[in-house]
Amino acid sequence: MQALVEVGRGLEALFSPRSIAILGASDDVTKIGGRPLQFLRKYGYAGRIYPVNRKAGVVQTLQAHASVADLPEAPELAVIAVPPEGVLDAVEDCAGRGVRAAVVLSAGFSEMGEEGGRLQARIAQVARRSGMRIVGPNCLGAIGVPDRSIATFSVALEDTFPAAGPVGIVSQSGNLGSYTLRLASERGLGISRMLTTGNECDVDIADAIASLATDPGTSVILCCMETCRDGARLHKAMAMAREAGKPLVVLKVGVSEAGSAAAASHTGALAGSDAVFDVVLRNGGAIRVPSIEQLLEVGHALAVLGPDRLPRGNKVAVLTASGGFGVLLADAASAHGLALPRLAAPTRERILQVVPFASPANPVDMTAQVSSRPEVLAKVLAAVAEDDSCDALVLQSANAFHVPRLREVFLTALAQVRKEHPSRLIVLCARAPQEVRTQLNAMGFPVVEGIDAACATLAALVHFGARAEPASAGAAIERETLPAEAFATEASAKAALARAGLPVLKEAVVASRDEALAAARDIGFPLVLKIVSPDIAHKTEVGGVVMDVRSEGQLIEAYESLLARVAHKAPQARVTGVLVAQMAQGGVELILGTRKDPVFGPMVMVGLGGIFAEVLKDVALQSAPVDEAQATAMLRSLKAFPLLDGARGRPKADVQAAARAVAALSCFAARHAGEVAEIDINPLVVLEAGKGAFALDALLIPEQAEKGKQ
Amino acid sequence: MQALVEVGRGLEALFSPRSIAILGASDDVTKIGGRPLQFLRKYGYAGRIYPVNRKAGVVQTLQAHASVADLPEAPELAVIAVPPEGVLDAVEDCAGRGVRAAVVLSAGFSEMGEEGGRLQARIAQVARRSGMRIVGPNCLGAIGVPDRSIATFSVALEDTFPAAGPVGIVSQSGNLGSYTLRLASERGLGISRMLTTGNECDVDIADAIASLATDPGTSVILCCMETCRDGARLHKAMAMAREAGKPLVVLKVGVSEAGSAAAASHTGALAGSDAVFDVVLRNGGAIRVPSIEQLLEVGHALAVLGPDRLPRGNKVAVLTASGGFGVLLADAASAHGLALPRLAAPTRERILQVVPFASPANPVDMTAQVSSRPEVLAKVLAAVAEDDSCDALVLQSANAFHVPRLREVFLTALAQVRKEHPSRLIVLCARAPQEVRTQLNAMGFPVVEGIDAACATLAALVHFGARAEPASAGAAIERETLPAEAFATEASAKAALARAGLPVLKEAVVASRDEALAAARDIGFPLVLKIVSPDIAHKTEVGGVVMDVRSEGQLIEAYESLLARVAHKAPQARVTGVLVAQMAQGGVELILGTRKDPVFGPMVMVGLGGIFAEVLKDVALQSAPVDEAQATAMLRSLKAFPLLDGARGRPKADVQAAARAVAALSCFAARHAGEVAEIDINPLVVLEAGKGAFALDALLIPEQAEKGKQ
Repeated sequence: MQALVEVGRGLEALFSPRSIAILGASDDVTKIGGRPLQFLRKYGYAGRIYPVNRKAGVVQTLQAHASVADLPEAPELAVIAVPPEGVLDAVEDCAGRGVRAAVVLSAGFSEMGEEGGRLQARIAQVARRSGMRIVGPNCLGAIGVPDRSIATFSVALEDTFPAAGPVGIVSQSGNLGSYTLRLASERGLGISRMLTTGNECDVDIADAIASLATDPGTSVILCCMETCRDGARLHKAMAMAREAGKPLVVLKVGVSEAGSAAAASHTGALAGSDAVFDVVLRNGGAIRVPSIEQLLEVGHALAVLGPDRLPRGNKVAVLTASGGFGVLLADAASAHGLALPRLAAPTRERILQVVPFASPANPVDMTAQVSSRPEVLAKVLAAVAEDDSCDALVLQSANAFHVPRLREVFLTALAQVRKEHPSRLIVLCARAPQEVRTQLNAMGFPVVEGIDAACATLAALVHFGARAEPASAGAAIERETLPAEAFATEASAKAALARAGLPVLKEAVVASRDEALAAARDIGFPLVLKIVSPDIAHKTEVGGVVMDVRSEGQLIEAYESLLARVAHKAPQARVTGVLVAQMAQGGVELILGTRKDPVFGPMVMVGLGGIFAEVLKDVALQSAPVDEAQATAMLRSLKAFPLLDGARGRPKADVQAAARAVAALSCFAARHAGEVAEIDINPLVVLEAGKGAFALDALLIPEQAEKGKQ
Repeated sequence: MQALVEVGRGLEALFSPRSIAILGASDDVTKIGGRPLQFLRKYGYAGRIYPVNRKAGVVQTLQAHASVADLPEAPELAVIAVPPEGVLDAVEDCAGRGVRAAVVLSAGFSEMGEEGGRLQARIAQVARRSGMRIVGPNCLGAIGVPDRSIATFSVALEDTFPAAGPVGIVSQSGNLGSYTLRLASERGLGISRMLTTGNECDVDIADAIASLATDPGTSVILCCMETCRDGARLHKAMAMAREAGKPLVVLKVGVSEAGSAAAASHTGALAGSDAVFDVVLRNGGAIRVPSIEQLLEVGHALAVLGPDRLPRGNKVAVLTASGGFGVLLADAASAHGLALPRLAAPTRERILQVVPFASPANPVDMTAQVSSRPEVLAKVLAAVAEDDSCDALVLQSANAFHVPRLREVFLTALAQVRKEHPSRLIVLCARAPQEVRTQLNAMGFPVVEGIDAACATLAALVHFGARAEPASAGAAIERETLPAEAFATEASAKAALARAGLPVLKEAVVASRDEALAAARDIGFPLVLKIVSPDIAHKTEVGGVVMDVRSEGQLIEAYESLLARVAHKAPQARVTGVLVAQMAQGGVELILGTRKDPVFGPMVMVGLGGIFAEVLKDVALQSAPVDEAQATAMLRSLKAFPLLDGARGRPKADVQAAARAVAALSCFAARHAGEVAEIDINPLVVLEAGKGAFALDALLIPEQAEKGKQ
């Protein structure tokens, strides 16, 4: 793991170098050694360009040098496009000469298997040793748009160079980054920087995000992420973006099982579970989007709006000239969690004064009058813009911007509302020729063509506008060590957890009938008896549990028969006693657990027991530790939460006690993250409000055992 | 209700009339009376055009007539664009003159409230009386593309007329229809006919679908539907499309509560529940899509593919030149229910022979080699096209068709694979300039730009390719009449249902302690006692149920206390006895019911009891009646089905008996659809496999009472 202070260090040379060397420079512009040189000259890079080629000679009309050592100065940036077997020498030459950053475009490393991985590790060592930053290998490199610094062979640049602007693009996949760049350019989005990280031997996606977070020319960060190799660095980079006030929009690739399998074969890295990424990105204040199209729409809207027009809530007024479109928009808005409140009475009256046959509800149907009476649109827009009951307006038009007569009506009305309400968030859901779209964008109106896309984009803006302070990353929790015997049995695990604040019912481990009777007198009936053995993980399978023991007579019978069954079914198991435990009566059962994610550390999970968690996958996940408020939010996010909340005449359960238990377990998992791989509390029984929640069973799996399982 | 034989009757005059009169013809081409005339002349309609205008004179350089009566012949089609108060006279004039079909563009009818509704009803009577078909009012009319017959004022025609082709468009909303037409034209989709039905005083959406089903020039039907006023007519129209082998793709507008509310205010019609529409459209063999964009993508793909290249299953091979895109495609495919099977070993070997560093798994990553070695694509395509393990191929390319050098490589490889595999379904997930797209379409390749859109489109094709025979519409079930007392009490309802084949446990209604004891001896313990009263619907609320009666002593005590409680809590209720019923022990509880949809008739619903149906909304719906196989499919579609199927060590439940019960109830509901509004069976207890399923409670709600409730 690299130090966190390093995140984003020393990457300026990738985007604004005063000199660039191309190692493996070629005359053939279809080759990866030919294209960067061609692009630098074609698009007018103003710094010094040094082709390097073993044969020296002339490359693309420039005099090449035979080695980096021969160059008249140390280039700030080196682009390495030599065959894989030559890359190690090349990076060593660069580091020796004092190059500040190198981009390795060549492929043939960890993505090709173990041998390639070893070669890549040696390249990484050069970066560690020398301090020269290395991008790649197997990447599509970097572009600094304002300085026309081009260290890529992306075909996206074959016929055009992007316009400069506020949007930065980072991607692990070169193709996704390159495609995003291309689409963004075509849609009129100005670009600041692009960086693709490929195999990430040194510069990783966290560095890449940080290089945009610290760039004054970037105000919106678009990120295509396949995997994360170091959770702490990603957290740091997300915090840098957040502190800089720059929205970070993330397309996480590899959501499904099929996708994750493909991701693994692509990057050679263990993809984190998708649900864990969800939590991590949300905690970091990033906006997660499901597609490249949505990445661009949201990035575009953020760039057009700037930081001051983000919505404070999810209430939207929808304006159309068509009932049918109004219904579609209402459907899509609802699907994306947007609310369409009733407009204020004076607003509705003003609308009806303009169009007596309009539907002044929300969606507002201005009717076909919009196309025959030019004053309608401006007046209705003004009425709705002045109504504070909504956080945003969506104005839909199917064909208006394609019909010259109507285009003028719309542009005039929009200019007027913008003048009178400079910071009102108005999203246009419309088709428009690119030049009209550019004009509308310049007036501060995002333009989204599809109905679903418009609502999804607005929902993402709402998410970003309303984002809470990030969850504490738990850095304050000090690691502690557990005694080894804590892992031995259910009783010892529960004892350790009870000390950490997880409530358990009264219980005692006994070694004889007499001890059992004494314990029963202390605890009271009904009781549960369970076998205690470090060799038995699944007690019911060996008949090692007896429920509902109600009298001393039953206790003696149960004690004897329990030991006899276990002796018969698990003769090898070391039995260290019998657990005599108070039996919970009634209540709702939760399943509660923690799991240490290999990248992001301990996560805590809670769901309702039985079919809810296991069949319906109705569980809530969060980074451990969580506090009681976060734990309550987790419980409330469950679809089955009504079962805890008095649904269908049930008594309300002690949600507060359950939340305290979740929080206590999560702190325990964080404190012991060095040694505990997994914890299962199944069940945590939650009694009626005020009566508490108790762990009835507990299993601690140590880090070692977990590794052994894999 | 109009007769079913009428569906689609007499609509040819809308699309291929030899003469057209425009009533309310105007010189002002921004008016609805001006535009149709302008369009007819601008786009070269070859028939005779008759402007009609009270002032006669010259309109748009043509001599106008003062009335339809003055025309030299009876026009086949009349376009009516007069003010609403003049429409009734206009349609009567047309009917009197022998016009075959009239399109009423004018608004101001049922969408404006009751008075408008009455005027509209009188217009409808003219259609009924005369046989002249009337489209609208408040609609955007009709277009017959091959004959350039234009009875619309849609702005979509202001600057261009659609190319002729196989795609027909029908819509209730004029704007949605018009927008769909415009987008389709821009995307190069040829159009046969468009018809928008507006307020549907006569011609409805079923007629509209039928007019495309019977049109030899239409092979794909796109439909925007907001509501349905007559389920039987829609069924008939869907059957006509299906029998003609024409895919019917439906965008149903008004899915969410907000959307439905907007739909109601737009059309003045009661929108059916969305889940019911889902069932009806699926049963009718239609493909339902969630957005206009998807309507176009699916329509486009169907038009490009023709009927012979539809996939027979959901297995897809994905080819990319980028691991990142491969992952995105795998994710999207998985989200849309497509499977990515492992390719056959010889296929994988052939791929590796071409590109040794490729990932031959599925998705196939051909790597950047595709852009530098032209032979790679053709060889890999051929290898995968010859592998029968997949039903379809998706070839993805981010930028290839925008780069001239690569475009040629792709077009050549695709031409070759098309030549060798003329009927192989290959979808291109790619961006392409329109002229390249047209070229690819002509080769039989659908081109979809977005990754999610490509997978959604393919999934719709799979759905259509694999569609089963439609569910029987239950026409064979004869209506029967129930005795009135069946509705009186739980016992009488159960008796009626038991006669219809719904199993109930042994029970008897008793009127005294002695009868109760006798019944208990016959049935056996444990028992349940329930009050029998036509005045008590919710028995537990008045203490009218005693569970788990286990002895004669308990029985006597329970009998007395039950009557005493009810006498105290519901003194007015007429008590006709006490139900003594066998008590079910164990089993899983289902909730089972039927509801008569006002448009589509009886529907049957089943879900697991308690939280599953009510909180998690995990229910299955179907048109009644269903047979046992359909009922089994309903049960299997429940998310909670594993609870019936032995999840987590439970015994398997008697799914077969449960399915028989669902089928029996659905037949009962269909047979008594004239008099039964709703049936509740809560619970139906399902015992272990082989032990049956039994209705423990039943409530029949007669049609009358249901109407009273509203």
